[in-house]
Amino acid sequence: MAAADFWYEFASTYSYPAAMRVARLAAERNVTLAWRPFLLGPVFASQGMRDTPFNIYPVKGRYMWRDLQRICAERGLPLRRPEPFPQPSLLAARVALALEGEARAEFSRRTYRAEFGEGQSIADRALIGRILVDLGLDPEATLAQAESDANKAGLKAECASAIELGLFGAPSLVTEDGELFWGDDRLEQGLDWAAGRRPAAAAR
Amino acid sequence: MAAADFWYEFASTYSYPAAMRVARLAAERNVTLAWRPFLLGPVFASQGMRDTPFNIYPVKGRYMWRDLQRICAERGLPLRRPEPFPQPSLLAARVALALEGEARAEFSRRTYRAEFGEGQSIADRALIGRILVDLGLDPEATLAQAESDANKAGLKAECASAIELGLFGAPSLVTEDGELFWGDDRLEQGLDWAAGRRPAAAAR
Repeated sequence: MAAADFWYEFASTYSYPAAMRVARLAAERNVTLAWRPFLLGPVFASQGMRDTPFNIYPVKGRYMWRDLQRICAERGLPLRRPEPFPQPSLLAARVALALEGEARAEFSRRTYRAEFGEGQSIADRALIGRILVDLGLDPEATLAQAESDANKAGLKAECASAIELGLFGAPSLVTEDGELFWGDDRLEQGLDWAAGRRPAAAAR
Repeated sequence: MAAADFWYEFASTYSYPAAMRVARLAAERNVTLAWRPFLLGPVFASQGMRDTPFNIYPVKGRYMWRDLQRICAERGLPLRRPEPFPQPSLLAARVALALEGEARAEFSRRTYRAEFGEGQSIADRALIGRILVDLGLDPEATLAQAESDANKAGLKAECASAIELGLFGAPSLVTEDGELFWGDDRLEQGLDWAAGRRPAAAAR
């Protein structure tokens, strides 16, 4: 069966609408999806960026929020800007990585909805704990596992992989043959590629 | 009849596939399109950028070329990278602005095809002259008009308008109610908006 990796960062705005639909889009194409949380901070730093481009370039940042508002309106998704932006996403990324399979996907969707749908702070341990309880998980045990040395090292390794794969933003989709697609607006194209539907002239 | 402005920069890669389809997309929605050539240089400078982001961030730049390759392959458009990139686009922008209506649109499409479809240098006066001849225009007279003080001042005014409208990249589509859509991948959404098809929740 075809497969693809969905790379996402909890602080990333466009990762929110993408996370809300990527599982459906993958299922429609019989593509098995691996959810891979990572941090953009180390990626940006490795590329000479000190902050999200949306803060470095305020005109672009204003546009991004309006664009996101229109996208969410079209798809019936709530949108409320969290403060500060970007949100500190380390805790959420560690917890997501500590979970597996459907629990990771559902934790991620609920965390995005709290952050960008309700404007809540995802650095808040109590919020993360409530999401875990809602998923039927033990919050203390999960948080302990998320903050174990092994899981912290695992997240660092994921960020190193992201840099190696040429990622520079989120969300990103990477296919088994190493093809990279950046952005919520490339999900269909990337998953089509993963499913083997690709223009002949684009072969490398 | 609904209307929208299509803002484009001859040095901009994604403006190429956009220019090749925007007239058809607008006609399908009964939207009258105004072609508005401008220069990104003054816009970037006003926003603290010293070059195209694709050169400032090489990882993003490499992705952009691959993304463009896939888009062109899907749409049956030839693609050949011009050197240098970005191309000096001042002459082409002046000539486009000196033309009107369908002549401007057709000159723009032919210039993009020469630049990104064939890798030719659009700073070459002979190339621009040949495109004008192919369009049945007088190249000397058109170039003289393009480089008149009035036309030079007109292009400067267009760049100032672009900054005022909040543009930060190309291609961009601006609707009559001032809504901004950035990128080839937002053309359909922007023209839908221009035609009155817009999600209620996105009203300002």
